[in-house]
Amino acid sequence: MAAPLGSLTGAAAEPPADAPLIDAPWSLEPGAVIEPYERPSGFEKHVVRTVTNPDGQPRASNARTPHHLLSGTITPNGLHFVVVYGGIPDIDPGKHRLVIHGLVKRSLVFTPEALARYPMVTRVTFLECGGNSAPMFSPQPLQENVQALHGMASCAEWTGVELSTLLDEAGVDPKAGWFIAEGADAPHLTRSVPLKKAWDDAMIALYQNGERLMPANGYPMRLLLPGYEGNMNVKYLRRIKLVEEPAMSFWESKTYSQLLPNGKAYQFYLLQEVKSFITQPSPGLTLKQPGLYEISGIAYSGTGRISKVMVSADGGRSWAEAALQEPVLSKAFTRFRMPWRWDGGTAILQSRAWDEAGNAQPTRAEFVAKRGELKVVPPAIAFPNQHFNAVTSWGVDSTGEVKHVYG
Amino acid sequence: MAAPLGSLTGAAAEPPADAPLIDAPWSLEPGAVIEPYERPSGFEKHVVRTVTNPDGQPRASNARTPHHLLSGTITPNGLHFVVVYGGIPDIDPGKHRLVIHGLVKRSLVFTPEALARYPMVTRVTFLECGGNSAPMFSPQPLQENVQALHGMASCAEWTGVELSTLLDEAGVDPKAGWFIAEGADAPHLTRSVPLKKAWDDAMIALYQNGERLMPANGYPMRLLLPGYEGNMNVKYLRRIKLVEEPAMSFWESKTYSQLLPNGKAYQFYLLQEVKSFITQPSPGLTLKQPGLYEISGIAYSGTGRISKVMVSADGGRSWAEAALQEPVLSKAFTRFRMPWRWDGGTAILQSRAWDEAGNAQPTRAEFVAKRGELKVVPPAIAFPNQHFNAVTSWGVDSTGEVKHVYG
Repeated sequence: MAAPLGSLTGAAAEPPADAPLIDAPWSLEPGAVIEPYERPSGFEKHVVRTVTNPDGQPRASNARTPHHLLSGTITPNGLHFVVVYGGIPDIDPGKHRLVIHGLVKRSLVFTPEALARYPMVTRVTFLECGGNSAPMFSPQPLQENVQALHGMASCAEWTGVELSTLLDEAGVDPKAGWFIAEGADAPHLTRSVPLKKAWDDAMIALYQNGERLMPANGYPMRLLLPGYEGNMNVKYLRRIKLVEEPAMSFWESKTYSQLLPNGKAYQFYLLQEVKSFITQPSPGLTLKQPGLYEISGIAYSGTGRISKVMVSADGGRSWAEAALQEPVLSKAFTRFRMPWRWDGGTAILQSRAWDEAGNAQPTRAEFVAKRGELKVVPPAIAFPNQHFNAVTSWGVDSTGEVKHVYG
Repeated sequence: MAAPLGSLTGAAAEPPADAPLIDAPWSLEPGAVIEPYERPSGFEKHVVRTVTNPDGQPRASNARTPHHLLSGTITPNGLHFVVVYGGIPDIDPGKHRLVIHGLVKRSLVFTPEALARYPMVTRVTFLECGGNSAPMFSPQPLQENVQALHGMASCAEWTGVELSTLLDEAGVDPKAGWFIAEGADAPHLTRSVPLKKAWDDAMIALYQNGERLMPANGYPMRLLLPGYEGNMNVKYLRRIKLVEEPAMSFWESKTYSQLLPNGKAYQFYLLQEVKSFITQPSPGLTLKQPGLYEISGIAYSGTGRISKVMVSADGGRSWAEAALQEPVLSKAFTRFRMPWRWDGGTAILQSRAWDEAGNAQPTRAEFVAKRGELKVVPPAIAFPNQHFNAVTSWGVDSTGEVKHVYG
């Protein structure tokens, strides 16, 4: 590799690289003591979730992950996205119970402590709100950054007990076809899940990136349904009832139903489909000078592993295959990367992902033809449709500024 | 699976599993608002690092990871182990510089921002202090828990720029055989690293589990040498100087030299060798009743992947192979698990790991024969020897209490 990549050597206002090192104050004085539980540097205080309901009004509260300021594939626990409908409950794990009942041979009840004795599994899995990226149903591209557009997807290492282990113990009635999961927080969020997901990879998660779940992510336990719509991964899980037919609950009948252009709606739309977006460069990260950059982003699919990500810098006229960071795990964030030389002109950056089942992330035109878009730009809070997974385009202008465009 | 695993069903003082659910206060009232950067539940406030120098005395400060309270393979950033010799510097990333000089064609200097434009890589890697487990050089087993004995090892997903990329740009003089890494904190920690490690997998790490490095783990940048002694992974990295011979710095000549029974010492002992320990059950986690438990623990090797972990419940007379959680990554924590039925009698739990190069974790007897042990039990702070990687034994008595023993 030659020398084009952003070394400051020779840059104006910098001493030469072979000048004596300067001792800053932190090189001359003892530093701070170690905290028992550490937080990021004060110089990173802008690296936070954006929260939509800081006053706790009686409506949904969202927190979005700042993807443009992160890298790798793990979302740190402090920055995992959140959607809650009744605030964050402060649950005493000693008083929390999980009941399994309904079409089972015998009902079971567990404390978190009792569950923690069971055989456990660990898996890295993304979670994504069905409403993530909903502002892209707008007929014009909203001038928002990747956090606002795609910040309701995150990825963590989850550890817990496979639901199938508990169902084996309860004994499932052959008539059961679904289970209904219910949360212990005030909304008692209730969702129906096909029973086959329990035999596949559903988990009662107790740990998130090694430590117990964060309060806003379901402490002391949540349902984890890898690849399924975020809202179905019921937090504060207190009940699993095995039933013949789905509950047609409020949330699955109203909020999380998908509208189609013909006025009908999908009855159940469980899967978060194959998707990708570029995190660097992205809006707010201005390119300061022409030269080599790394285009980097995230790809994932609720179906399985990412098999390929193609990247374009000219709005989709030409494409090149990005490098995928190993290990590429099923239903997990995969970081993709591609070197790119910015010549100082305009550019449109896009990524498009494929999964191992052959599913392709749709272009915007393909997606809109199937799922529709809104006729007018609504307020940011009022996007009634969900499961947007088409290609995102970032326009770079000759000043290096990056904006959301429809490429 | 039958029903022996710890379901509370039928337990005294519990309502029957099919009793109506009880609404606790958190099921009846709105919860708290979402914080921009979240911390664990107040019910988990005991899940913290133990810190050895809370008053900031002019000596080393350690913080140990509470392995007995964690699961999975990722150590959350708030709980990663720390060793610092001058406290934690509060470094302004805008004023921090990394210089590469010495036996290179041209010296280079980088800001963190400039480095962040370079091609990056992500890898999950454990770090371990050379002094981790040093209390096990004691001739009698110290009554400590897994955090006190083995808490100076942690595992995170690190993202940054490969050192080889920067050395390619600088152009390396063929005479160079080592490089000296220096930190910007007050001790200016200086360590010598064989140059071949730069061509293998050395990284300048900028991100830890997705977010920028924690202050106590090197913010804004650190050297990452997967599998090498923790102290060599120089934090607050400000200088890499390519040289012909190692520096014989204070730290590598004194603190991090390994004493042998014959009075000699290894000159350089770079690798953290294959090791494992059981985290659950372990001291402090009392078994409350006979029945099925999961034995779970961590294995890792600075050489590569873990190939096998054997577990014994009878002090090493019989062994069975544990399940390894996939994906098994090179130089990373691997979680192993084994179901175990405690019959209410005494037991001695042990784990022993092998890596893909065929290296076996030594038994205590093998290790002591080679490396020696102390003649008397010293104060906890005064264990002069390091790189202890032999088998750990947890004794279970008939009350279910777990104690550190020499099996």
